Amino acid sequence: MDTRITRTTVNVRNYHLDAYAHVNNARYMEFLEEGRWAYLAERPELARKLAGDIALVMVNLNISFLHGAVLHDKLEVMTSLARLGDRSVVMSQTINRIGDDRRVVEATPTFVLLDTRQKKALGIQGDLEAALRPLLLPPAA
Amino acid sequence: MDTRITRTTVNVRNYHLDAYAHVNNARYMEFLEEGRWAYLAERPELARKLAGDIALVMVNLNISFLHGAVLHDKLEVMTSLARLGDRSVVMSQTINRIGDDRRVVEATPTFVLLDTRQKKALGIQGDLEAALRPLLLPPAA
Amino acid sequence: MDTRITRTTVNVRNYHLDAYAHVNNARYMEFLEEGRWAYLAERPELARKLAGDIALVMVNLNISFLHGAVLHDKLEVMTSLARLGDRSVVMSQTINRIGDDRRVVEATPTFVLLDTRQKKALGIQGDLEAALRPLLLPPAA
Amino acid sequence: MDTRITRTTVNVRNYHLDAYAHVNNARYMEFLEEGRWAYLAERPELARKLAGDIALVMVNLNISFLHGAVLHDKLEVMTSLARLGDRSVVMSQTINRIGDDRRVVEATPTFVLLDTRQKKALGIQGDLEAALRPLLLPPAA
Repeated sequence: MDTRITRTTVNVRNYHLDAYAHVNNARYMEFLEEGRWAYLAERPELARKLAGDIALVMVNLNISFLHGAVLHDKLEVMTSLARLGDRSVVMSQTINRIGDDRRVVEATPTFVLLDTRQKKALGIQGDLEAALRPLLLPPAA
Repeated sequence: MDTRITRTTVNVRNYHLDAYAHVNNARYMEFLEEGRWAYLAERPELARKLAGDIALVMVNLNISFLHGAVLHDKLEVMTSLARLGDRSVVMSQTINRIGDDRRVVEATPTFVLLDTRQKKALGIQGDLEAALRPLLLPPAA
Repeated sequence: MDTRITRTTVNVRNYHLDAYAHVNNARYMEFLEEGRWAYLAERPELARKLAGDIALVMVNLNISFLHGAVLHDKLEVMTSLARLGDRSVVMSQTINRIGDDRRVVEATPTFVLLDTRQKKALGIQGDLEAALRPLLLPPAA
Repeated sequence: MDTRITRTTVNVRNYHLDAYAHVNNARYMEFLEEGRWAYLAERPELARKLAGDIALVMVNLNISFLHGAVLHDKLEVMTSLARLGDRSVVMSQTINRIGDDRRVVEATPTFVLLDTRQKKALGIQGDLEAALRPLLLPPAA
């Protein structure tokens, strides 16, 4: 696996489901958040740079639900960095069913890095850009 | 208020928040789902038409997080029908803070209507289209 | 209704359910928390006394699940103060189905009032006891 | 570790917390449910016996919150079978913080085994008792 991708797994449990016996849409948001924390946990230097007075704030999410996951499915959440804007960072996340590789969810969350003291979005430049650029993995065409 | 819009309210409670003291992103998905159920509850004839062998399946969601809601905020969820495709239905949902009308979330969920017996997406035509078209409220420019 | 009881209502939605098509047990915890916040919201003087450097910390919960709530059930959460200990406060909460009054959940959460600066449990005495005692409603025999 | 205990782990993430920066009480219910599913997953023969027309229904939970877990805590959920009644099964579950072994939660959920066709609680006898009795691990005095 490309080292710019973080993989984390989830076992689908009863409490993730709703009355349709599929994983409820809101739960995928938690699975994706789980993937992003794992991404940071694997990159402690980046995590340190983003701690302190910087908050990662999600400003947009585009999410496609391609296949409904069901009880006992084992899912993998793949998380990577897709694009850098002047003041925003776009990640790419997919959730696949382990075993048959069925694509369950595709998501592109966009973040700003908020300076919590000055209450403004940081420019993605200098040290910050230097830390992020090597992690970029443009989505496959 | 335009009769094509359904308004429902939510009080932000401690359990909706995360460690940033803002409503966690996944909770907004639940607030939006709440709004859609209220939308159907206000339109029992439509709800009946969409019951039985038809399942509304969300295939995509675009959601923008504009302002972080905090403890004790009172929110309103506004839900309406934005567009009809050949085989899809696009809704428009906004979440505002009551009091100062601050826009918190904008979301456009896209659904297909699945024939659960034949396992295929229904065309938006005939009776179904006749029931949905009068509800259309194109988003303001 | 006895003025020492706060009543709040919940509509059971799809996202509250799990694959058994019943409300998932963890959701009842949220309904109960909702009831407790409503209890405080109805008693602003008490809420002020419990704000600032005091945190209400749940130390124990005994909860009985008597009947499984299902989609579209309308529930009422009834919240009152059941007992005062030297350093603890016991509440009584029930969840009933509106319409046929079926008892769904009975819960007795126990709290300590934590002085967040001194990191110790406050004694229920003086002003605090004077504010709480008139609210006591011992459970029916 | 005693083979009658199942151990499963949870990383505390931001979305598990509430505004107090502690894991929200309702989340512990999910952690405990996670532990019970893992318990069954480790015992496939038992899981098969409890599938089909039998539903495990939680009728009571006593849960003590001993220490508030915080962001980045790694928790272990320990699940075992504590007692058999004529028509009920009592489990014992604890959640500990890995590293310093701090006890976070102690819980004793009680279940009935519901015959979903006859809508009545099964007696814990015969085959069922024979499958469950070897798993018993009475709580330490």
